[in-house]
Amino acid sequence: MICPDDHLRPLVLERLMLYHRFLSERGGRKALATVTSGQMAEALDVDPTQVRKDLGSIGLRGRGRVGFNATEVVNTIRQVLGFDRTHLAVLVGVGHLGGALIAYRGFARYGLRIVAAFDSDASKTGQELAGCPIRNTRGMTAFVRRHQIHLAILSTPADVAQRVADRLVAAGVRAIWNFAPTRLAVPEGICVRDEHISLGLSQLAYRLSD
Amino acid sequence: MICPDDHLRPLVLERLMLYHRFLSERGGRKALATVTSGQMAEALDVDPTQVRKDLGSIGLRGRGRVGFNATEVVNTIRQVLGFDRTHLAVLVGVGHLGGALIAYRGFARYGLRIVAAFDSDASKTGQELAGCPIRNTRGMTAFVRRHQIHLAILSTPADVAQRVADRLVAAGVRAIWNFAPTRLAVPEGICVRDEHISLGLSQLAYRLSD
Repeated sequence: MICPDDHLRPLVLERLMLYHRFLSERGGRKALATVTSGQMAEALDVDPTQVRKDLGSIGLRGRGRVGFNATEVVNTIRQVLGFDRTHLAVLVGVGHLGGALIAYRGFARYGLRIVAAFDSDASKTGQELAGCPIRNTRGMTAFVRRHQIHLAILSTPADVAQRVADRLVAAGVRAIWNFAPTRLAVPEGICVRDEHISLGLSQLAYRLSD
Repeated sequence: MICPDDHLRPLVLERLMLYHRFLSERGGRKALATVTSGQMAEALDVDPTQVRKDLGSIGLRGRGRVGFNATEVVNTIRQVLGFDRTHLAVLVGVGHLGGALIAYRGFARYGLRIVAAFDSDASKTGQELAGCPIRNTRGMTAFVRRHQIHLAILSTPADVAQRVADRLVAAGVRAIWNFAPTRLAVPEGICVRDEHISLGLSQLAYRLSD
């Protein structure tokens, strides 16, 4: 994760996202007016002190045994993380994973809207997937410039990822969500989040090999 | 991540996986006989002391300025993490993401083999996807027992994930790779790795909202 100007560190942001999900996902819990750091800590396997520190870093203070106002926590996190705005994005590389990301409905609640997908395979272009048009990569930079897209999702094969990233950045993209299994070199100020799905296997395979 | 009996901590395992990928992915680097902790640290944005400590924890010592034997590092990591063995797995929930995971070829190098997929949608069962048969969830526990499957990949909707997990654990599954966007309650000794794909959005949306 290369985000030099961030005020909140990536791990804090990830935990805020987990608190948000915990408080907003379950119908029963939504009804709760208040929630304590202890309840969140137990459900999410985090230290209660850590929960209070994280929420304190975005200006939230709990009250004694009463805890936090649940709605206030959810709304503040949404605002701080930017989920209350719409983030237009393009996706590049419509393979199996790219297709799954396009079709996934869960991103909408975080403000993400994939407005177009790009692929170099002519047999895919001109079609739509889950309402998202698939275009030829040739028109990618022009599209990104014209629509002032700042976020790109990269799900190309590893060997073309860097070249695609270079073109996206030159066209004005400021943040890349990288699902290609390779590290990208980007200019300072560009934010890259590597999503290395296989990483989880390290723990599972290790555990099963005991 | 709930893995109480682990000797190496999850974050160490993840870094070992990153060293493994760094040393095995690039054709040019493969040819390198030796690699220093400084080279790995720079490429992967980790402290050099951390690299030496991680490799030391699996019995590898570098020699002065020469560094580490690259092949030895790769092979030792593969052995420690269990990538040199075959891990048979079932996948449950053949939606877009489930389909992408079945079709992804990158898992094979870590020893993962998805032998069957299960779905409750009768229009999907009886077919094959990337050579993997899709079966009805009704036969899931019997299959898991018969083939002594210890690893399951969960890509169902959140609201059925717990019920499916309970059935899998009862049938002998010891490790669950959970892509359903919910936390699972499992008995002690069962290893769960939550893959919360949306997590990355916390950093990207925050950054773009500056």
